[in-house]
Amino acid sequence: MPMHEFFMGMNQLELINRAPGFFKYQPHNVAAHSWKVAQIAQFLADVEEQNGAVINWQSVYEKALNHDYTERFIGDIKTPVKYATATLRSMLADVEDSMTENFIKTEIPQQFQTAYTRRLGEGKDETIEGKILSIADKVDLMYEAYGELEKFNPEPVYVNIFQSGLEALAAFKDMASVKYIATDILPDIFAEEFTSKELLYDLAKSLLPDFTGKKRDI
Amino acid sequence: MPMHEFFMGMNQLELINRAPGFFKYQPHNVAAHSWKVAQIAQFLADVEEQNGAVINWQSVYEKALNHDYTERFIGDIKTPVKYATATLRSMLADVEDSMTENFIKTEIPQQFQTAYTRRLGEGKDETIEGKILSIADKVDLMYEAYGELEKFNPEPVYVNIFQSGLEALAAFKDMASVKYIATDILPDIFAEEFTSKELLYDLAKSLLPDFTGKKRDI
Amino acid sequence: MPMHEFFMGMNQLELINRAPGFFKYQPHNVAAHSWKVAQIAQFLADVEEQNGAVINWQSVYEKALNHDYTERFIGDIKTPVKYATATLRSMLADVEDSMTENFIKTEIPQQFQTAYTRRLGEGKDETIEGKILSIADKVDLMYEAYGELEKFNPEPVYVNIFQSGLEALAAFKDMASVKYIATDILPDIFAEEFTSKELLYDLAKSLLPDFTGKKRDI
Amino acid sequence: MPMHEFFMGMNQLELINRAPGFFKYQPHNVAAHSWKVAQIAQFLADVEEQNGAVINWQSVYEKALNHDYTERFIGDIKTPVKYATATLRSMLADVEDSMTENFIKTEIPQQFQTAYTRRLGEGKDETIEGKILSIADKVDLMYEAYGELEKFNPEPVYVNIFQSGLEALAAFKDMASVKYIATDILPDIFAEEFTSKELLYDLAKSLLPDFTGKKRDI
Amino acid sequence: MPMHEFFMGMNQLELINRAPGFFKYQPHNVAAHSWKVAQIAQFLADVEEQNGAVINWQSVYEKALNHDYTERFIGDIKTPVKYATATLRSMLADVEDSMTENFIKTEIPQQFQTAYTRRLGEGKDETIEGKILSIADKVDLMYEAYGELEKFNPEPVYVNIFQSGLEALAAFKDMASVKYIATDILPDIFAEEFTSKELLYDLAKSLLPDFTGKKRDI
Amino acid sequence: MPMHEFFMGMNQLELINRAPGFFKYQPHNVAAHSWKVAQIAQFLADVEEQNGAVINWQSVYEKALNHDYTERFIGDIKTPVKYATATLRSMLADVEDSMTENFIKTEIPQQFQTAYTRRLGEGKDETIEGKILSIADKVDLMYEAYGELEKFNPEPVYVNIFQSGLEALAAFKDMASVKYIATDILPDIFAEEFTSKELLYDLAKSLLPDFTGKKRDI
Repeated sequence: MPMHEFFMGMNQLELINRAPGFFKYQPHNVAAHSWKVAQIAQFLADVEEQNGAVINWQSVYEKALNHDYTERFIGDIKTPVKYATATLRSMLADVEDSMTENFIKTEIPQQFQTAYTRRLGEGKDETIEGKILSIADKVDLMYEAYGELEKFNPEPVYVNIFQSGLEALAAFKDMASVKYIATDILPDIFAEEFTSKELLYDLAKSLLPDFTGKKRDI
Repeated sequence: MPMHEFFMGMNQLELINRAPGFFKYQPHNVAAHSWKVAQIAQFLADVEEQNGAVINWQSVYEKALNHDYTERFIGDIKTPVKYATATLRSMLADVEDSMTENFIKTEIPQQFQTAYTRRLGEGKDETIEGKILSIADKVDLMYEAYGELEKFNPEPVYVNIFQSGLEALAAFKDMASVKYIATDILPDIFAEEFTSKELLYDLAKSLLPDFTGKKRDI
Repeated sequence: MPMHEFFMGMNQLELINRAPGFFKYQPHNVAAHSWKVAQIAQFLADVEEQNGAVINWQSVYEKALNHDYTERFIGDIKTPVKYATATLRSMLADVEDSMTENFIKTEIPQQFQTAYTRRLGEGKDETIEGKILSIADKVDLMYEAYGELEKFNPEPVYVNIFQSGLEALAAFKDMASVKYIATDILPDIFAEEFTSKELLYDLAKSLLPDFTGKKRDI
Repeated sequence: MPMHEFFMGMNQLELINRAPGFFKYQPHNVAAHSWKVAQIAQFLADVEEQNGAVINWQSVYEKALNHDYTERFIGDIKTPVKYATATLRSMLADVEDSMTENFIKTEIPQQFQTAYTRRLGEGKDETIEGKILSIADKVDLMYEAYGELEKFNPEPVYVNIFQSGLEALAAFKDMASVKYIATDILPDIFAEEFTSKELLYDLAKSLLPDFTGKKRDI
Repeated sequence: MPMHEFFMGMNQLELINRAPGFFKYQPHNVAAHSWKVAQIAQFLADVEEQNGAVINWQSVYEKALNHDYTERFIGDIKTPVKYATATLRSMLADVEDSMTENFIKTEIPQQFQTAYTRRLGEGKDETIEGKILSIADKVDLMYEAYGELEKFNPEPVYVNIFQSGLEALAAFKDMASVKYIATDILPDIFAEEFTSKELLYDLAKSLLPDFTGKKRDI
Repeated sequence: MPMHEFFMGMNQLELINRAPGFFKYQPHNVAAHSWKVAQIAQFLADVEEQNGAVINWQSVYEKALNHDYTERFIGDIKTPVKYATATLRSMLADVEDSMTENFIKTEIPQQFQTAYTRRLGEGKDETIEGKILSIADKVDLMYEAYGELEKFNPEPVYVNIFQSGLEALAAFKDMASVKYIATDILPDIFAEEFTSKELLYDLAKSLLPDFTGKKRDI
């Protein structure tokens, strides 16, 4: 059942909640996350374009929209498992690739297989659009964690997620879009009270040279 | 709080369920719906492009991704209210426009206002990308209804939604993408058992000349 | 299907959540809200009666019980839309009236149409029972907001709701029941810690001359 | 905290689901149930009044609205336990009475204690308003069960509930309102397909002489 | 339907939430609670065994695993009702016993009836395994309450539950396992911030001589 | 935070739903599943013991109770990924082992490490207790699938789960407990209507020689 199966499969992504096993006040599903990542990527591409970069808009959207579709084949493997050894990580990636390839052969009509091979492949490459996807994926994860931190969720995992988000942004700190986050978005986040705010403020300050937030806004 | 407010607002769309007031086995939120519409639009644009149309891909994605963002200002006005009179409909549209304009002035930094005026405006225009959005929006609504019909939900509203979806598709029946739906997607939907299948089959047959589904597959 | 349709329709009010789009720790549906408004109205009528007013008890209960039934036809139109212009507001009211009239003609057996025209019409009139409904509706809304404020919900909307509740009470501040709220109910609310307590305390103090709450109870 | 405690306690009734322990597609809380019982009682009183009975409307509403408030003190004791022996039943009723009395003394201001003693006492007495409450309470329970039966819930408990509802109606079969249910409401329920329809149809036929439903409407 | 009925009945325990009627951030069902009690009992038995006690491990596990199965027949009777008078309490216990006996006769094949009479009977006896069950049941209840207290749930009931948990532990304060709780588990609980921490700290200090927690860890 | 961390971790198993990504009418969490597996294992051990086997009851309970605790470290890796290649499977098992070992070293006090190494290790070994765990784990999974099949869930995955459950039972078809399932439990399951009943009946018949179910009971 060619594209019908692909479309029905979108429903599975509405049924997979992110970060299972951790208490949260508001759950988020993978479909909604994918939409938010595409929204954030759209904005980050605006910033890069205004800064002089040449943006392939089709690629920005396509990468963001499709980046988690294959999660329905793979399931939620916890990060420490995924990254336990380099060999394991690459073997898991190979399995993901072969399952995706097999899905495309079985479920996608032939004339669309090239497009879907690109769409369901790894989007986080070295192009500017790939970098935008990496950043946007982390920014939405940080917003999800922030939604728990501002409700004073006692689970320490949300502090860890926000921390590792800051570290991931730092790897792209020379990009115009990350500078914009540091000067025009993060300060608004730090204008509110939330769990471990001081610790995270200090980390942002040390990792992102452009970060202009104030320690105490209230 | 410029873009921070826009990004936090995405969370509201995760919290608005579609079709409130009707019993459903699986709720769908507006954020996940927007993602699915963008996925469907992406595929319909593939079909149109392979059929010779020139597609502005940036526009396809941008329209689909943003088409329901303003629902957070407006709320869910039931269709019969919205369409009660032509005057009321146009007044509601005016209010939506002026609230959106006001939001953009207040919450979107100046250098991005042109982009967001386009993004948050009415996307369902006469361009091929606008038509693709109209179709994709209906197709996802039909899939949502189908998800209830195949579970034999006794609420009659889902039959009505599927019916009006078919009628909406009929308005675009000369487009390659609607022909593809009629020949390669709807038949797979009609291969399963669901509520009012015969009635809906006959309607599909009468409205969509290309529809190739069989009445009894099982 | 005359009264059967009316009774089945009550189920829809159980399925409509109040204030969609705003994160809340505890959702409230319209059916439960209607019950709480009737409970509050019952008590406010006690207070008015003990203060010498003549109460039409049938009317108190009837108004409170039925005041939101028509929400199943209308949906949830956000307040700023509803009140955008006087013309729009009156047009929306006209549509609601004509949909209700049509529903009564179609679904209510003739011998009960007079009663249901009264029940489903606007209950918030200038009678004492109409005023009691206005107050009780706001008091329950304030309790819903308070339930979020005492859990330190970071959404600012709940402070706004509580504020506009106080303003609505102020419009009836000469009524015995509002005086009772100011002297014997609000002080208990202000005996606990909650978000924006100081701000709301000052507002209560300035709007309701009889308010006897203390700023710091803890 | 006098009335504040009473009003906050309404929230508990929103948090108690009916029939815990049985799988259901749609849960119903006690607050929403109370609202529906009051709506049904209102209609049944219309029928009785048009049939010549003198209705004390204040009593109809008061009884229906308050009939389950004390459930927050008592919890959900399963019916077979409650009715195991006559002595146990009467002892449980005594405990409920004394807890209610104690609550009224502690939480209801003195000038309202008479009213609340009446409101929180047993409403299902031999008056016509008491009988209307008994019937309305069963009718809503039957609608709750019907909501599951029409979704083909495999739990046999819903057939049992519907059966015992019919039996309870039969005890009042000479009342105008029960005749109306038998001639004008039940037939609409039996116009749809649902689990054990034949069995329940035969039971309705044998218990309610006025029942005019048809065995096969479809 | 002998054991099939017993196994299907386990599903009911997944559908009964503990402490209905009180707002909670995270609900817990009786099935999951039973698992946690068995886990805690397993550990407490470790402690007792290392302290020289002779443990009947089959009994430890059997008691913990089965201690709430009969809740599906009885429902959730609120504690103040259950303990209102000694006579009522013993009558309720008799009803529970006779319902259980009847269930075993009807649903358990004869060759397993002896085992299930033991399993579904009262496990909290004077044996060391019975005491371990009493303690483990309370410890899990305390953890459930703690999960709400560390989220600053404003419902006072969770403070009460934690308090009565401490009192119950005090009754067994000479047991090695309770000493271990006092020295090696409670201090970790008191290392975090939570509602009414000071009050509960003082209570723990006065009730459990071995408690080594510090008042301020942060 | 030694055992406190272990006990708090049980909460994570309450928050992990089984079979994420597939629509289900009733979700089941890992904690409740573990309880049901222990209940089923307890009964299967009864059967084996009555058939003459020597049962180590401590081991039966310990294995069942603890068999999924490590899922909180690993997450939910979809079966096709886990079993993609023998090498991958063994590497994933190694990672699980080393994470468990590390957890025990960090979070379990030394005097209990031997016990928890045994408890958190692989329980499905060649002992009779290990086989009972394998069977019980499958039986609960089959009951979970059956709960969906009897509600006519259109997701084909539940038929697949039931099928693979039958295949797993067949591997132990000479055990007394599996014979009992075939003669005294499965026939009761097949006494009801459910999705793909004929197909599954034929499979049961071909795989389990002792299966005594009838094809049509209704």
